[in-house]
Amino acid sequence: MTATLLPNALDRARNAVQPAMEAAVDRLDPDSRAIAAYHLGWTEADGTPRPGGAGKGVRQTLAVISAEVAGATAEVGVPGAVAVELVHNFSLLHDDVMDRDTERRHRRTVWSLWGESAAILTGDAMLALAVEVLLESPSPHAAAAARELMAATRELIRGQVADLSFESRTDVGLEECLDMADGKTGALLAVSSCIGAILAGAPRSVVDALRDHGRHVGAAFQLVDDLLGIWGQPEATGKPVLADLRNRKKSLPVTYVLCQGGPAGREVAAWYAEDRPGDGDTEERLREIAALIERAGGRAWATGEAERQLRLADAALDRIDTPPAPRAELADLARYLTRRES
Amino acid sequence: MTATLLPNALDRARNAVQPAMEAAVDRLDPDSRAIAAYHLGWTEADGTPRPGGAGKGVRQTLAVISAEVAGATAEVGVPGAVAVELVHNFSLLHDDVMDRDTERRHRRTVWSLWGESAAILTGDAMLALAVEVLLESPSPHAAAAARELMAATRELIRGQVADLSFESRTDVGLEECLDMADGKTGALLAVSSCIGAILAGAPRSVVDALRDHGRHVGAAFQLVDDLLGIWGQPEATGKPVLADLRNRKKSLPVTYVLCQGGPAGREVAAWYAEDRPGDGDTEERLREIAALIERAGGRAWATGEAERQLRLADAALDRIDTPPAPRAELADLARYLTRRES
Repeated sequence: MTATLLPNALDRARNAVQPAMEAAVDRLDPDSRAIAAYHLGWTEADGTPRPGGAGKGVRQTLAVISAEVAGATAEVGVPGAVAVELVHNFSLLHDDVMDRDTERRHRRTVWSLWGESAAILTGDAMLALAVEVLLESPSPHAAAAARELMAATRELIRGQVADLSFESRTDVGLEECLDMADGKTGALLAVSSCIGAILAGAPRSVVDALRDHGRHVGAAFQLVDDLLGIWGQPEATGKPVLADLRNRKKSLPVTYVLCQGGPAGREVAAWYAEDRPGDGDTEERLREIAALIERAGGRAWATGEAERQLRLADAALDRIDTPPAPRAELADLARYLTRRES
Repeated sequence: MTATLLPNALDRARNAVQPAMEAAVDRLDPDSRAIAAYHLGWTEADGTPRPGGAGKGVRQTLAVISAEVAGATAEVGVPGAVAVELVHNFSLLHDDVMDRDTERRHRRTVWSLWGESAAILTGDAMLALAVEVLLESPSPHAAAAARELMAATRELIRGQVADLSFESRTDVGLEECLDMADGKTGALLAVSSCIGAILAGAPRSVVDALRDHGRHVGAAFQLVDDLLGIWGQPEATGKPVLADLRNRKKSLPVTYVLCQGGPAGREVAAWYAEDRPGDGDTEERLREIAALIERAGGRAWATGEAERQLRLADAALDRIDTPPAPRAELADLARYLTRRES
């Protein structure tokens, strides 16, 4: 992956949003502010400034473009952009505590450096702050935007609840799994893709089309991410080879195979049921399992489904009169999020 | 404490708020809903219904009365009442995780029964739901109410951040300590005391007076709670005798003494610095420490300060034209919250 592949819109949105994002984080109490600044990639753990940020800012970019689709300036979307990024990072902080992950984006996680309480409280503060920032927007539609954002936040939480409950279950169906992924990934991308348009007072048809676009892009993104977790190249993904199999993650291609049954499906199921992470995990054995999942149709299904979701994302935009510049940027972003070599 | 001492307003508010509270909790995903219903005291851990609730509902009562002070019906205050109770219970769920408390109100805490993740996620969902419920209110002032509630939520979080940081510090001053208590207890009581008036569109003078009333009642409540933690009777408080000394809690009377210095103050400081909870904690030794704190003026100061805060709470209501019925109820509630025998 080279820097030139990054859509220009990401930089453009960062320039528009960053001052408001910094002003928002500045309002946190000093302890939470320092932790948030580290988590967001603005500082090192000791507080020294650090160039760049932690994430690409896909959600803030979608928020800003959505205001422009509705014919408003990027500025109108900025409070929405700040709010979706705050909610996204609230959920990352809490998820890392729950999943006991010690690394995120090649850096130590907040709870692993400052303890669980710090991660919980900083996340809580970012969630409350997201609502404040949004409701302080001069838009007469700020309350509607905040309602939509909180409903999406609860979907996100519902997805995490489902994900955790799946760990102790062996009977999870494909529908449930897709629904969980939709909550964990789709809900926030959906609201990010329309919140600027809501603030701009766009008609319902425009808001609905943008929301649908984001939801389908989110579904495609999750499928591609799951494909890369099994068949991706470590030098491109930044994860160990066959990472999701090593962690016994029942990602979407795996769930598809488990639900199909058949000899290959039953063999995959037996491996998931019997072996714990680390048990005889030679790369050779993991490659056999990956091949089994592929033979059982998991790879082809996930690839086809991701393509279908991308077509649906595009079709959603066809329903409205999207100006060509933001439309091209949305297409760029969708392609970027679902590129296979990432 | 007998049931007849309970202010009537608590029952009246519960009747007005409970259906909306149940409707709100019903919107949570099934796992979070079951956990919230247990935490709120509506069910046992296995889901069997349980009469009564877990708390007295002081915050919902204040919210309902505040609508009435502004000349509106209780109904206008109900979304605010539901929202403040949801925020209060979000903070209890997260605090119990952070403090590792296994009991609350004589029942097992959520994290100790279902694990940390369940407590974190249910709390998160309740916080997001609080905003949704409030913004769905038909009041044109719902967004203002939600901003005020989220600002108070961040004060609450700031108080918890400070409380946790104090554990590892020996130089905490009285001002800092009062400020921490104001965040942890005062902020949510302050917003509870005015949110119904905000929804009712009351003038700023009325909202400000009610908010000040709640904040001073909160301060008095915290002081009395701290007095009872040292000098309260176990049969009345439901806590072990000398509970806060056993836990080495630096509550407000203790902090006052530590800040005063002097021979007694230094002796108390030495005991806090040297002994860990459990170390030689005979009841006799704890009683000696309590007597020392009393001799150094901690008890008299806290008693006097609580009285002063109650007078300030009352004076805040004098600034506005409070109708006699809600005024009497607010006085009843303040007395109930700060009664010495509880």
